[in-house]
Amino acid sequence: MLNFDFYNPTQIVFGKDRIADLAKLVPAEARVLILVGGASAEKTGTLAEVRQALGTRQHETFSGIEPNPGFDTSMQAVQKVREGGFDFLLAVGGGSVIDAAKFIAAAVPFEGDAWDILLQGGRNIKAALPFGAVLTLPATGSEMNNGSVITRRDIGAKLPFRSRLLFPQFSVLDPTKTYTLPPQQLANGVVDAFVHTVEQYLTYPVNAPLQDRFAESLLQTLVDIGPRLLAAPEPDYDDRASLMWAATLALNGLIGAGVPQDWATHMMGHELTALHNIDHARTLAIVLPAMLNERRVQKRAKLLQYGERVWGIRSGNDEERITAAIDQTRDFFERMGIPTRLGAYGLGTEAIDAVIRQLEAHGMTQLGEHRDVTPAVSRRVLEAAL
Amino acid sequence: MLNFDFYNPTQIVFGKDRIADLAKLVPAEARVLILVGGASAEKTGTLAEVRQALGTRQHETFSGIEPNPGFDTSMQAVQKVREGGFDFLLAVGGGSVIDAAKFIAAAVPFEGDAWDILLQGGRNIKAALPFGAVLTLPATGSEMNNGSVITRRDIGAKLPFRSRLLFPQFSVLDPTKTYTLPPQQLANGVVDAFVHTVEQYLTYPVNAPLQDRFAESLLQTLVDIGPRLLAAPEPDYDDRASLMWAATLALNGLIGAGVPQDWATHMMGHELTALHNIDHARTLAIVLPAMLNERRVQKRAKLLQYGERVWGIRSGNDEERITAAIDQTRDFFERMGIPTRLGAYGLGTEAIDAVIRQLEAHGMTQLGEHRDVTPAVSRRVLEAAL
Repeated sequence: MLNFDFYNPTQIVFGKDRIADLAKLVPAEARVLILVGGASAEKTGTLAEVRQALGTRQHETFSGIEPNPGFDTSMQAVQKVREGGFDFLLAVGGGSVIDAAKFIAAAVPFEGDAWDILLQGGRNIKAALPFGAVLTLPATGSEMNNGSVITRRDIGAKLPFRSRLLFPQFSVLDPTKTYTLPPQQLANGVVDAFVHTVEQYLTYPVNAPLQDRFAESLLQTLVDIGPRLLAAPEPDYDDRASLMWAATLALNGLIGAGVPQDWATHMMGHELTALHNIDHARTLAIVLPAMLNERRVQKRAKLLQYGERVWGIRSGNDEERITAAIDQTRDFFERMGIPTRLGAYGLGTEAIDAVIRQLEAHGMTQLGEHRDVTPAVSRRVLEAAL
Repeated sequence: MLNFDFYNPTQIVFGKDRIADLAKLVPAEARVLILVGGASAEKTGTLAEVRQALGTRQHETFSGIEPNPGFDTSMQAVQKVREGGFDFLLAVGGGSVIDAAKFIAAAVPFEGDAWDILLQGGRNIKAALPFGAVLTLPATGSEMNNGSVITRRDIGAKLPFRSRLLFPQFSVLDPTKTYTLPPQQLANGVVDAFVHTVEQYLTYPVNAPLQDRFAESLLQTLVDIGPRLLAAPEPDYDDRASLMWAATLALNGLIGAGVPQDWATHMMGHELTALHNIDHARTLAIVLPAMLNERRVQKRAKLLQYGERVWGIRSGNDEERITAAIDQTRDFFERMGIPTRLGAYGLGTEAIDAVIRQLEAHGMTQLGEHRDVTPAVSRRVLEAAL
């Protein structure tokens, strides 16, 4: 087992009818800027619940935070916070809104050009506004971690940053708030949580059996509930709750503590989203199967363990079992309605050069748990994903 | 899944050579009272490492905190803190020392008779000194939770309390610090963590598959490493690390979030320790198998799942499989060198009345996940454990 630090002070407030708890969770004297994405938080009544819970607290709403939240949009919110004297942010939405809240929280007190926060990966953050979240879309895990990803569309860049100062103070997770989600967003959530887990699990063994089993627990649960979520004629509360808690635990620092981590698939996925606006989870479904196949030697032991424990693959020689494990992974994504080929988005060989150039421009030239995913390897992965 | 709150702000600093991190973890201006048990922290050199990391910070040591830490001993430390003007506590030891630190942290600023903290279960705690821990004995999980148990030997009482103010600010977990532990303490640690997990898992199903799998992950890991820990001619770092992390995660709030909890075995065990000074884990090994058998109807579904997933029991009818699961549990404790009968401690029928009287005196008359473990049920459990 590797040495590690684990620290996660976010309070999780989980279950039915918990939005009313905002009355206790938000400081009584706070001046609150509520952050939302499109119109759905208003339409579904969630925003009305939030406002009721805030009671007499001064509050306004900033709406329009887009999927893969943009730098420009976030900076408009920063200006509104500064001008309005708001001192608490409340993100109501999915990972994009929470990611934006983290950036806004850091940018408001930041001196200088806030884009530097992204260029430094957050290492230059010295202060941040306090903020909380009401999660409506389980997927990214942003509700219980200190990381965020912000996109600048003008230069096709999607960059991550993190800071110890950027944990939400609390996150309200009410599974019934997922009932209005379209199937595509549920499927994205399942795949996003699945790949987050894989990136912290499918590397090489370091004698950390508990971390392995926890990761396998998440994968098994997602494999069980994923197809059920899509097939159910009516939302099942417990399955929604399991998805919500699984997505949170897949990226709150727990399963990655003490083990190697990969993240090459994510870094390549970010470039595909930045260039072609493909949903984050969908880029992961394109890259992951090809990445696992490309790196079957380096990941051999864990691929065999994954095949056996998650997919029950026990027959065949090692190579056959690894192939079967990768095939099952691809098939799972496809069964969730998520394509696993670039071609599904009209992208062919001609699209690959640009992705490689962007990886190089962002310093993503030594990816993966062995730092051996060079641009040449990334190119082979994309070619295999055509 | 049940509604839940999860909040755990303790920073875990895990791995080899991490005690030096105290230099960053303890506030620079702190006046530190180090709390230790017997002579081992001094003898093994751990205390010297701690003092070196504290550098020029003012510090003194209070030693003599006994297993099942006593109210009287803790109050002596409270007096020392008040007289010496200490403002930070550093527990160096196992769960007993950390439990004592929690009580001392709460008692120093407490107005009135500090015994009331125990009588109120901690609900009357309004403030607490900050404190951290250096763990040397993995077992209780106290290093990453806000609970504690304090014993008053004069009246034979061992009572729990908790408070949101009593999470350690940090805990340093260096698995090499377990290398000097005698086998009995290692075995106690395995059994303590195992029963903590069982108390949050082996109740009744609430469609929380992820919590179930996490609990099973802990149990499987403990079953795997337990006998190896005892048999190894030299300490194995990774197995020690897995024990340490498993014991922490078994009682940090994670696996109990959103599911029913039992704790009847613990409450009965506490009385056995208070009356007969039997190691905490050893009391659990006496009570648990008899408790599971007594409540096989109420726990039926989970006993079958436990048998299959943790012990691989797949043949026989339901009753046979449940019996096999309970037998495997008892056998595991015995293989760890821990007796599972009152007789092993020279206790017979004559000892039972006193335990029941103490349970009644402490209000422990409606125990278990269904509140149906009355004194009559507790009596049958003890009779079955003779």
